[in-house]
Amino acid sequence: MAIEPFDVVDLIRTKRDRGALSTDQINWLIDAYTRGYVADEQMSAMTMAIFLNGMERTEIRDLTLAMIASGETMSFETLSKKTTDKHSTGGVGDKITLPLAPLVASFGVAVPQLSGRGLGHTGGTLDKLESIPGWRASISNEEFYRQLEEVGAVICAAGSGLAPADGKLYSLRDITGTVECIPLIASSIMSKKIAEGTAALVLDVKFGSGAFLQDPARGRELAETMVQLGKDAGVDTVALLTNMNVPLGLAIGNANEVRESVEVLAGGGPADVVELTVALAREMLELAGVHDADVEGALKNGQAMDTWRAMISAQGGDPDAALPVARETHVVVAETDGVLVEQHALPFGIAAWRLGAGRARKQDPVQHSAGIDLHVKPGETVTAGQPLFTLSADEPERFVRALEALEGSYRIGNAEEFESAPLIAGRIS
Amino acid sequence: MAIEPFDVVDLIRTKRDRGALSTDQINWLIDAYTRGYVADEQMSAMTMAIFLNGMERTEIRDLTLAMIASGETMSFETLSKKTTDKHSTGGVGDKITLPLAPLVASFGVAVPQLSGRGLGHTGGTLDKLESIPGWRASISNEEFYRQLEEVGAVICAAGSGLAPADGKLYSLRDITGTVECIPLIASSIMSKKIAEGTAALVLDVKFGSGAFLQDPARGRELAETMVQLGKDAGVDTVALLTNMNVPLGLAIGNANEVRESVEVLAGGGPADVVELTVALAREMLELAGVHDADVEGALKNGQAMDTWRAMISAQGGDPDAALPVARETHVVVAETDGVLVEQHALPFGIAAWRLGAGRARKQDPVQHSAGIDLHVKPGETVTAGQPLFTLSADEPERFVRALEALEGSYRIGNAEEFESAPLIAGRIS
Repeated sequence: MAIEPFDVVDLIRTKRDRGALSTDQINWLIDAYTRGYVADEQMSAMTMAIFLNGMERTEIRDLTLAMIASGETMSFETLSKKTTDKHSTGGVGDKITLPLAPLVASFGVAVPQLSGRGLGHTGGTLDKLESIPGWRASISNEEFYRQLEEVGAVICAAGSGLAPADGKLYSLRDITGTVECIPLIASSIMSKKIAEGTAALVLDVKFGSGAFLQDPARGRELAETMVQLGKDAGVDTVALLTNMNVPLGLAIGNANEVRESVEVLAGGGPADVVELTVALAREMLELAGVHDADVEGALKNGQAMDTWRAMISAQGGDPDAALPVARETHVVVAETDGVLVEQHALPFGIAAWRLGAGRARKQDPVQHSAGIDLHVKPGETVTAGQPLFTLSADEPERFVRALEALEGSYRIGNAEEFESAPLIAGRIS
Repeated sequence: MAIEPFDVVDLIRTKRDRGALSTDQINWLIDAYTRGYVADEQMSAMTMAIFLNGMERTEIRDLTLAMIASGETMSFETLSKKTTDKHSTGGVGDKITLPLAPLVASFGVAVPQLSGRGLGHTGGTLDKLESIPGWRASISNEEFYRQLEEVGAVICAAGSGLAPADGKLYSLRDITGTVECIPLIASSIMSKKIAEGTAALVLDVKFGSGAFLQDPARGRELAETMVQLGKDAGVDTVALLTNMNVPLGLAIGNANEVRESVEVLAGGGPADVVELTVALAREMLELAGVHDADVEGALKNGQAMDTWRAMISAQGGDPDAALPVARETHVVVAETDGVLVEQHALPFGIAAWRLGAGRARKQDPVQHSAGIDLHVKPGETVTAGQPLFTLSADEPERFVRALEALEGSYRIGNAEEFESAPLIAGRIS
């Protein structure tokens, strides 16, 4: 048995007592955890100590680099195109990757989007695309690089070889109440993104009731931390700070979010989804050296749609196939006349999850047709009896618990009570 | 699968965010942990959150009662004698239980001492007694009660049936850096002691460099917490707050601590060991209703020694057998004339451990003959060349690392530099 250079209990005590861990200590900790020498229960005590006592910038950087070093890294240097990547910290109704990746790729830029599945109330990009008949999330390395060259956009499952320590640590944080912690969120996201080998990265950092972090100031802190980590690793990184108090767009689920994304690619779709897609596309294209691109034009003239169709087809999907529809629907109508003054993202996310759109455990399947379609956005006028939203599920008994989650989640009032908030609250670079 | 009334992640988050857990939540948590429904990694995050954010008095009481409820409880109600128990929070050279139990029992009181083995630098009472040829730590329930009636004193291994949740939690704390935490220490000690069914309990709460808690104020807080827990559970409880900056007595190890204990039972022995044994015996006898007992007389006149011999014999030990002696010794002498002004408990405890007197892992054996014999106590005058202490071990290569631990652990200076401190610093009842 090799002699270990550190004692994990000493390291836990250091963090517990508000000390900082050295580069060597963090490298050893992550390596020993990946090897299984440091046990889950020890890492769990460490993450709670990090949650409560924080980490210095250098520790966060060391943790990120150690997690990258725990596995393989990819490289796009042989590619003929520039690469830009995008990552969202996750929210309710956040389908932006779907129209964004083909839109940016349609300008000749490579957009490799290694994505995940949903857990809890935030959906997963792969779950959404899997509602398209025939579409496959898993592709070979060879198919991946060929599709990047030929189509430009790939959305596929991240291999388990990238930052495996992060995968292990994330599963642990999920069951030990240590998710909402800036050093751990930042290093988790950035270790995967840097390991993916992108040259440029645009982050969509969400704050509000439907996001990991409710407080905009903490959202900004997370964005700043991640932008710094990206720059330290040589990745051009920009972040937009965006509002997730209200669901994004009108569709929350899987198949209905694909439908809404296709509307955006056809030049239509809800204004907020279009606004965010366009803003993120501009940032990505700028970082890739494509200046003054006519992004809105590419949505209107079919350029982005052509890339979408090619991207879906390349992974076995039929872009013209009908998407699944739920067996049962339940419509909720306005009880009074007035203005919709509140619509909270979190309860809508939880309700869609309870309808079957999300999963409680990693191994559970999702129901692609389950979800919620909103008919009214905050600030709009309604009359009594007008449909506010429609729940969809295959099993009607799911409506009961979904409606419970939605109690108090929206409110009709007077026009003066409505406070509009900008969707894009800041930019960090 | 039964529906669980709580979600452990919610409970962890509550404590993480400085909230208090309800009685129902703590009962469920400990029961679910004992059943294995709550995983070690979840309990580990919870204990770190408790370590850093604390617990209210009611939570500590609920935790103690929940750990008692996790297993069996004992009762001494059928016994013809009154029972008193003693517990020490552990220190270097702390062999007090050995002379104390027979001394108190010699006055017709039952002293059931369910003890443990050592881990790390503090020794275990059972390890010490096992240096006596033939002596057995494990006895049946029937033998246990018979010996209490006939001899009065029993020192034996605690069954795993008492407060099993505490056993599980203690092992976890040991490897996750969450040992030195008052709510967790207090509930751990008191759950076992209350489950043992004693009517009265005297606590020896140690503070200083060789104790769990260095700071006397934190020692007092621990003592007050435990006394309150005992009273809440109907156990007459008193605590002495005692100094553990300096090793107790002259012997640190196993066989040599038995030798020193026998000296005390023969009316001799180091003054500090005698002082503490007598003080604790008086407290125990008072709680058992034996007032104004001639405790010192019982050490001088052979009364306590007779009970010791009966106690050892009853568990298969030969009180007249020669105790093991180490193969190698190493004597450290004074380099200069002067007064021994410092002698720190912790490094001496660590050195004895490295000599083989203690264990690093639960499954390791201890070497009964290994240890340290001090020849000089702080405040005493020495001349250059005079032996200060002797290390004993079977393997001479162990002397190197033991001597490393002892670097800077003692100092010879001027008489004015010596600060004497009382051994017994307070009493809490």
